[in-house]
Amino acid sequence: MTDLKIVAVDITPVALKDPPLLNSSGVHEPYALRSIIEVHTDAGIVGVNEAYGDDATLALLHQSADAVIGADAFDLNGIGRRVATAVGGAEASSPTELIGAASHDKTVAQAFAAFEVACFDAQGKATGRRVVDLLGGAVRERVDFSAYLFYKWAEHPGDFDVDPWGEALDPDGIVDQARRMVDKYGFGSLKLKGGVFAPEEEIEAVKALRRAFPDRPVRLDPNANWTVETSHRVAAALEGELEYLEDPTPGIPGMAEVAAKTDLPLATNMCVTSFADIPESIRLDAVQVILSDHHFWGGLRATQNLAALCDTFGLGLSMHSNTHLGVSLAAMAHIAASTPNLTYALDTHTPWKAQDEDVVLGGGLTFTDGALTLPRGPGLGVELDRDAIARLHEQYLTCGIRRRDDVGWMRRVRPEWTGKRPRF
Amino acid sequence: MTDLKIVAVDITPVALKDPPLLNSSGVHEPYALRSIIEVHTDAGIVGVNEAYGDDATLALLHQSADAVIGADAFDLNGIGRRVATAVGGAEASSPTELIGAASHDKTVAQAFAAFEVACFDAQGKATGRRVVDLLGGAVRERVDFSAYLFYKWAEHPGDFDVDPWGEALDPDGIVDQARRMVDKYGFGSLKLKGGVFAPEEEIEAVKALRRAFPDRPVRLDPNANWTVETSHRVAAALEGELEYLEDPTPGIPGMAEVAAKTDLPLATNMCVTSFADIPESIRLDAVQVILSDHHFWGGLRATQNLAALCDTFGLGLSMHSNTHLGVSLAAMAHIAASTPNLTYALDTHTPWKAQDEDVVLGGGLTFTDGALTLPRGPGLGVELDRDAIARLHEQYLTCGIRRRDDVGWMRRVRPEWTGKRPRF
Ligand SMILES: [Mg+2]
Ligand SMILES: [Mg+2]
Repeated sequence: MTDLKIVAVDITPVALKDPPLLNSSGVHEPYALRSIIEVHTDAGIVGVNEAYGDDATLALLHQSADAVIGADAFDLNGIGRRVATAVGGAEASSPTELIGAASHDKTVAQAFAAFEVACFDAQGKATGRRVVDLLGGAVRERVDFSAYLFYKWAEHPGDFDVDPWGEALDPDGIVDQARRMVDKYGFGSLKLKGGVFAPEEEIEAVKALRRAFPDRPVRLDPNANWTVETSHRVAAALEGELEYLEDPTPGIPGMAEVAAKTDLPLATNMCVTSFADIPESIRLDAVQVILSDHHFWGGLRATQNLAALCDTFGLGLSMHSNTHLGVSLAAMAHIAASTPNLTYALDTHTPWKAQDEDVVLGGGLTFTDGALTLPRGPGLGVELDRDAIARLHEQYLTCGIRRRDDVGWMRRVRPEWTGKRPRF
Repeated sequence: MTDLKIVAVDITPVALKDPPLLNSSGVHEPYALRSIIEVHTDAGIVGVNEAYGDDATLALLHQSADAVIGADAFDLNGIGRRVATAVGGAEASSPTELIGAASHDKTVAQAFAAFEVACFDAQGKATGRRVVDLLGGAVRERVDFSAYLFYKWAEHPGDFDVDPWGEALDPDGIVDQARRMVDKYGFGSLKLKGGVFAPEEEIEAVKALRRAFPDRPVRLDPNANWTVETSHRVAAALEGELEYLEDPTPGIPGMAEVAAKTDLPLATNMCVTSFADIPESIRLDAVQVILSDHHFWGGLRATQNLAALCDTFGLGLSMHSNTHLGVSLAAMAHIAASTPNLTYALDTHTPWKAQDEDVVLGGGLTFTDGALTLPRGPGLGVELDRDAIARLHEQYLTCGIRRRDDVGWMRRVRPEWTGKRPRF
């Protein structure tokens, strides 16, 4: 085996149902967009991956796809150069403002990651090896995930399927949601998406979670919806209560001001979201935990580089999630399993997915005792479900959504809504 | 192919002839020590590598060898843990003070690297892939090396073979040496090992090289043999003349003082030699170029992590060399070829090796136009020369040297010599 040349690329946008989950931008729309990447090689081996599915990302992926044809699936450096050239002139774009500002570097990293993971899957299939083995071997065979709790409405405005989780708009609602999620999946830690209600209400929700689940670490993520002053206040109120406080306020200097006055570790997936952000962040000691995400950090190897960097500077490392399907979940598990210092439970939106909606056979990997057992098969260890992809692609075609817009969807209900941050 | 279990490890110490090259510690002894590592797998595939060959290193390697048997050659994380456990209680040791102080981390990194590279060679042979492909693909097929110039004696004190290079004790001698080395190998850049004579003499040697080779970048490496004051003086005299100034003075704080007063980039393979040194170095802006060396940074993947870190912080990256044979040369070439930001010519001691002394078939890779063409074969692309290894092992057994001691060998000639730094 010496050749593994890319001969064709398929990119299939899909839409999955998404409940009305609230955040600092607004509310999730009824459908979330993803795309399935299939990299065909001359050996007949097909590497698969999952990426964002908004129009801007799809344009980047199509431009890149033409460029990577002819490349060796092992030549990730070469594929990186091809992608960088192909999307070099494209406007910087971000599939959501919840992962920080768009930049040229991040746009390239995001496009490259889509192909890099697919190539790793192909490499694994070609060598009979799991992706985790190509990344240095499994430090753990089971990867812990956390229960991702959201304030939410009972249903979307309009004529949409109703999700089974019901309303959660106060501490009792959040504790009930946590109970159901923990009962179902066994998660050992909890994360509350905040930035929705007045900080005092969210402090109460955290305290209620702590009382109900005294053994489970809790995180709170207001998505930069607080001023520095508000952040100081909340940090003081929750000192000792949180595993970490995630993105209380916008920007590295703001985070540094907050960090200077609290012992709570600050985490981010909004102000340090590419390697270019690292030096300032280190200089100001702005964050203590970086939330990795291979989708926008530039793939699995880049995530390993980030992990080494965190290790070098004594930073914690955890993992961020946007709404995703089973291929992304598998990729997250492989990179997490290969990373010694990724010792926090990972974020995942998986519980919010409809049970019958996944693009991988078997309906996707499942959590037991809060963890996912790494698949045994070569590559990512997942197989695409053609029928499901066809169904979710049809849903993409008919749903009408082409870019994520939590602000716009909130305006349906609250026309005065701007999504402007910080709101508190 | 899913199994590649390590079933046995061979470690063969060898000694190669070494000319009387002068440095700040003293002078090279008549023989330099290396070891050849062979990792046998249950698939019958054997991965090879080269490491230091001093007694302390050999002890570490033997302790580690027992521990890695049974591991999967793809499970580098697992092998890392096994090695760390096996040598955890060993005293920190360094094969030479010219790569900085010994530390526990470095001792473990050094032992691990010996096996990691051999495992990469085995992985490559098992998958029909070059090591560079397993590292992300070749950014370049030809890797530039520099002419490594040394002040030297015509011959060793005592009854030893005389090398063909003759004496070089002044600027003319260095220029002649450079001319011969450039004529023979086509090197496009020059490095002078300094710290031997008074700085003024070495400044003159650099200027003579610049006059004789106006198109070739020159580096100077006094191996921390100057005080901060002396370093200021030399840096001022050579501003604009050097590609970089390497380790003028000991320690990160000292280097930072020097860096603060010069525009010359400072490089190091002495004060930043493990990840633990990075944060202080960045904080103080002590060095602008890090000289990687997979032998003590912890292998090829660690070197990639270092490269990403240099890229993130805007540091230059070059490569250090100790006296070595052809397996190390191949490994250096593979990691360099896979590293986009390793754009400096690499150091190598290869020209100082006797022509008939190498452990790889064909007498080792050779330089044309100052560069080495990456071998095409799987793994590292080199094959061991059994006869040569037997000969060099016999030489090891008879030479009597068991640890490198440049200070001691200088004492043969100058009994008052201490090797204490900084001397100027
Ligand atoms: Mg977040
Ligand atoms: Mg040096």
